Amino acid sequence: MILVLKRGATTDQVNYILSKIEQAGLKPHISEGADVTIIGCIGHEAAVKVFFGEAEALPGVDKAIRISKPYKLASKEIGKERTVIKVGNVEIGGNNIVVIAGPCAVETLENVTEIAENIKAAGATVLRGGAFKPRTSPYTFQGLGEEGLKYLSEARKKTGLLVATEVMDPRDLDLVCDYADIVQIGARNMQNFRLLQEVGKVKKPVILKRGLCSTIQEFLMSAEYIMSNGNEDVILCERGIRTYETSTRNTLDLSAVPVIKRLSHLPVIVDPSHAAGIWYYVEPLALGAIAVGADGLMIEVHPVPEKAYSDGAQSLKYDTFSEMIRKTKQVAEAIGRSI
Amino acid sequence: MILVLKRGATTDQVNYILSKIEQAGLKPHISEGADVTIIGCIGHEAAVKVFFGEAEALPGVDKAIRISKPYKLASKEIGKERTVIKVGNVEIGGNNIVVIAGPCAVETLENVTEIAENIKAAGATVLRGGAFKPRTSPYTFQGLGEEGLKYLSEARKKTGLLVATEVMDPRDLDLVCDYADIVQIGARNMQNFRLLQEVGKVKKPVILKRGLCSTIQEFLMSAEYIMSNGNEDVILCERGIRTYETSTRNTLDLSAVPVIKRLSHLPVIVDPSHAAGIWYYVEPLALGAIAVGADGLMIEVHPVPEKAYSDGAQSLKYDTFSEMIRKTKQVAEAIGRSI
Amino acid sequence: MILVLKRGATTDQVNYILSKIEQAGLKPHISEGADVTIIGCIGHEAAVKVFFGEAEALPGVDKAIRISKPYKLASKEIGKERTVIKVGNVEIGGNNIVVIAGPCAVETLENVTEIAENIKAAGATVLRGGAFKPRTSPYTFQGLGEEGLKYLSEARKKTGLLVATEVMDPRDLDLVCDYADIVQIGARNMQNFRLLQEVGKVKKPVILKRGLCSTIQEFLMSAEYIMSNGNEDVILCERGIRTYETSTRNTLDLSAVPVIKRLSHLPVIVDPSHAAGIWYYVEPLALGAIAVGADGLMIEVHPVPEKAYSDGAQSLKYDTFSEMIRKTKQVAEAIGRSI
Amino acid sequence: MILVLKRGATTDQVNYILSKIEQAGLKPHISEGADVTIIGCIGHEAAVKVFFGEAEALPGVDKAIRISKPYKLASKEIGKERTVIKVGNVEIGGNNIVVIAGPCAVETLENVTEIAENIKAAGATVLRGGAFKPRTSPYTFQGLGEEGLKYLSEARKKTGLLVATEVMDPRDLDLVCDYADIVQIGARNMQNFRLLQEVGKVKKPVILKRGLCSTIQEFLMSAEYIMSNGNEDVILCERGIRTYETSTRNTLDLSAVPVIKRLSHLPVIVDPSHAAGIWYYVEPLALGAIAVGADGLMIEVHPVPEKAYSDGAQSLKYDTFSEMIRKTKQVAEAIGRSI
Repeated sequence: MILVLKRGATTDQVNYILSKIEQAGLKPHISEGADVTIIGCIGHEAAVKVFFGEAEALPGVDKAIRISKPYKLASKEIGKERTVIKVGNVEIGGNNIVVIAGPCAVETLENVTEIAENIKAAGATVLRGGAFKPRTSPYTFQGLGEEGLKYLSEARKKTGLLVATEVMDPRDLDLVCDYADIVQIGARNMQNFRLLQEVGKVKKPVILKRGLCSTIQEFLMSAEYIMSNGNEDVILCERGIRTYETSTRNTLDLSAVPVIKRLSHLPVIVDPSHAAGIWYYVEPLALGAIAVGADGLMIEVHPVPEKAYSDGAQSLKYDTFSEMIRKTKQVAEAIGRSI
Repeated sequence: MILVLKRGATTDQVNYILSKIEQAGLKPHISEGADVTIIGCIGHEAAVKVFFGEAEALPGVDKAIRISKPYKLASKEIGKERTVIKVGNVEIGGNNIVVIAGPCAVETLENVTEIAENIKAAGATVLRGGAFKPRTSPYTFQGLGEEGLKYLSEARKKTGLLVATEVMDPRDLDLVCDYADIVQIGARNMQNFRLLQEVGKVKKPVILKRGLCSTIQEFLMSAEYIMSNGNEDVILCERGIRTYETSTRNTLDLSAVPVIKRLSHLPVIVDPSHAAGIWYYVEPLALGAIAVGADGLMIEVHPVPEKAYSDGAQSLKYDTFSEMIRKTKQVAEAIGRSI
Repeated sequence: MILVLKRGATTDQVNYILSKIEQAGLKPHISEGADVTIIGCIGHEAAVKVFFGEAEALPGVDKAIRISKPYKLASKEIGKERTVIKVGNVEIGGNNIVVIAGPCAVETLENVTEIAENIKAAGATVLRGGAFKPRTSPYTFQGLGEEGLKYLSEARKKTGLLVATEVMDPRDLDLVCDYADIVQIGARNMQNFRLLQEVGKVKKPVILKRGLCSTIQEFLMSAEYIMSNGNEDVILCERGIRTYETSTRNTLDLSAVPVIKRLSHLPVIVDPSHAAGIWYYVEPLALGAIAVGADGLMIEVHPVPEKAYSDGAQSLKYDTFSEMIRKTKQVAEAIGRSI
Repeated sequence: MILVLKRGATTDQVNYILSKIEQAGLKPHISEGADVTIIGCIGHEAAVKVFFGEAEALPGVDKAIRISKPYKLASKEIGKERTVIKVGNVEIGGNNIVVIAGPCAVETLENVTEIAENIKAAGATVLRGGAFKPRTSPYTFQGLGEEGLKYLSEARKKTGLLVATEVMDPRDLDLVCDYADIVQIGARNMQNFRLLQEVGKVKKPVILKRGLCSTIQEFLMSAEYIMSNGNEDVILCERGIRTYETSTRNTLDLSAVPVIKRLSHLPVIVDPSHAAGIWYYVEPLALGAIAVGADGLMIEVHPVPEKAYSDGAQSLKYDTFSEMIRKTKQVAEAIGRSI
């Protein structure tokens, strides 16, 4: 950590700051510039962390700047270049790009099974579908709960697809793990730290969606919560952030993909459906996601979008989904990957 | 709901849309303009809600616009002008402005008791302090848990202050309710819908903090989650939203106070400490909060901010806190209220 | 335009509103719903425009909603599907994707000539370079002015590349037009309406960069300013918007490309250099831009980025630029286009 | 400036960096931490500025951090605590709070004169009114130009109020200065650097409005543009920034007032009319502005808002304006100031 002193900080103040740094178990290192004096604080990370809160409030200090990254296990700095997560016969984070698709919410057994068969035919290997649905309004459909999990499980039996589904509450986690191959944490729960701790204790890979207003650093810190509890199989999912722009539901931050790939060894997938909020932008954004380096796509598919219980406007039909997959394969190939 | 049709929507498309509206149990109402045709969809709210998802995806439809507010119990439209919540001998939402103060995190019994005595002397009536702390990093202090709740309870015994403290997990709710007079939902949990449902079932008032990137409508929808589960004692708390500006930790949206007061009958308080992130901006923002019409303030206070376990930089010391209260009283009086 | 009335709007209020609508030269059209009453206001656009300002302030009105798009010439609704702009032997907006490259600022004749030769060899057809530089600080390099324009012109002579350069001031426009093939309006001047009007009167194509916090609608309105003054050759350039995310300089909004392509017939190009702010994110974002459908790329190139007068951190060197072009060609081909 | 090195930066890289620092005319200062090595770069500001662009691109460097503020004349660091600007018999920045009011756009002589008389009666001392109007659409009223300036001048003659009006184009500046007492730069022109340079050369105070997405540092840098050209009479005006919240036109950032007062000696005023976008939020926000420490208010007033040529929805009528002034006086008094 570096402390930048105020112009005109007095010798008394500087001495007080130095004594504080030493009390905190750190070694100070002064550099006096023409305009500004800075003091480096060197020592164990834990001590730095504790002292950081205090430092900016010290008299004579203008600002305190942390310089090492607050996440460790999620960082490439631990020496890992790339994590490949294996679930069943699917690899996430390798050269092959995974396609996760399905309805926003599980509706009926017939519906989810039909969708599963169709997305499989088009090239998907993981079925998504919400049984527990986080909805802005208490008056809208909240998901089928365990019934929905059973339908997903049935659809898996018929198709061999893996199942990914969201958990919203620590109390449901065992239940969800009984049925799911991959557990999903939704954007609104990205900083539900108790839930993160709990999924950190299970043996299933976790798709962690980026919060609507989370920085990439916070996103990686949330991954760190899961990893530091023992579960290192975290798949990060960019799904759009909130900006002032209203022509799309959210603004898909595709630069997050290369940024995360530079900072972390974890796989990154992209959900263009929730970002766009409207089906006809899903295909171009999916192609863009592949081109910037995403390790997977998460796409909403529904046979009759206008009848979907939730988020119909952003769902692709079978034929537009197949067409999209066909094009993403070509883009993947162009950059030396496969789908 | 109103459907705005695309220019050049065909007669077939219009007929199809009309048939869909009727199938949805709604009555269509066409208005053909020089430039645009619109169709009003009239009927029961529930049917409108269901049809809305579908509508924008219909061929020939340019956009679908909902026109009635999605929250009901939180809205003034139910006929209530203002809710005053009584807890012990404190009223929140009346002419008197409530001051809630205390440390970010409960640290020791001595510390929290001393703070309680000092804030009481300065004019606060509610003690805040976190026993369960949502922290961005898994490596930082996560709160004392039940131990912390006990200390708060002891401090209440000695001072007569009410206790407000955060709950992060449905599994802790009973425990928190055993000790707290007011339960708090933090900004990061504003859309933790399962937690909202649970606090909707208890008999304690709830302070609901606005999410960092939540619109006021979403904020009121989250209040609606609590209210629709039976607990109508919701206190809304503006605590800063996330913008591109970096000179404060968050951007305090003081216009949220008059906006909410226009839309809802619920009390609104303001937390300038978390918004500013640095103690010397707390006083002016607290004065601003009173002037725009806030029903209360939530302020972090710590005797030795540079030693606080959490968020020291934004904590006021006893003397600056007392001085702030003195000034807020004058501003309150200037607008015909009291503290 | 639609007026949504407040619940409980009185008959007197409704009658007053109706009389106002008629005074404004519009025809009212009432629809009374179970919950809400709405009034459509139908008539000439100009009259609607005038009345819109007034409408929301009328007693009994909850909100006024405009439903037709405020831009005309920039919209597909005028019947044009796609505009292809021809400058010399370069077409922008056709199947071929144009590459515009060069230094942020023109520095010396040798420097800009060398860059021009190198980007041409790699496949660029337009040379960019700033002679007038909008800089946040008055103390930094502000560009060479006319000297810089001459260097660009020399570089054109040697390479046959077209020249695109920025104009910041109506007083410089004639001068810039004497040297440039394409005139650029920077992001900070996207709503410098007087400048837009002036470039609307010249006979050169205009690259219009999206403002850092401009909505897509405002972006198209600024194009409309240029077009309504007579110059229909507008090339829209997405270059990143401002969000809370700090790991990139701005957040490149790649969804703007398909959104604009849906709303407008104008060509859209992407500048990943300014959006990323750091060179190693430029290539993946350029590939993403091609994949989402951009008609061109604008890339900063400098032989010795660490010596650039401006924005060195985001400039590619010759070899990384060539390598990037090679990859973009493959992605372009994958989606049926060429570079 | 500080360079933070990458973990594992090689000795060769470090030596190269050191040589670069020295070539740049700076003195390096290494501190090796357990985790990270940092190098301070000390020397003349100008040399630091030049080297900064280069530094982050050097091999082995993770980031470069500037630590002294890029604005000088606008900063308190030059030794000034507070600037009070005198125009006629009005002081801006002193203990008395100035009220600037008037119509959004000048419409007719009668209209502006009547408004001037009424705002004067209520307590305003400066008349605002746009003769040159920056409008999002080319099809809306663009202002009366010189005719409007004459009307303002007439209104001044009748009332003794000072006149503040916007300039949008360097070519109009002489004309505007002939009529105005205070020149205004609008939010959309906050980074129209050529215009800033020009108003820096005139002898009239300048109201500089904060751009919709400008950081406070950029705001102060724009003030610096004006000041470094010779005109030190800059009045900063907060008028709302762009966020995702849609219930107000912009989000008024009242924390900008204490932040700027801490960083700069320049006066700060607040325009709640443009921030709110709707008249009934203007009064509470004006009270809030006074409470947080604003040196003035800028308020839109119109006798018949629903007939205003521009921004009617946010204009106060005479009686609501008088009532607002009455209340702001009380809040001003409560904090020891006057209006």
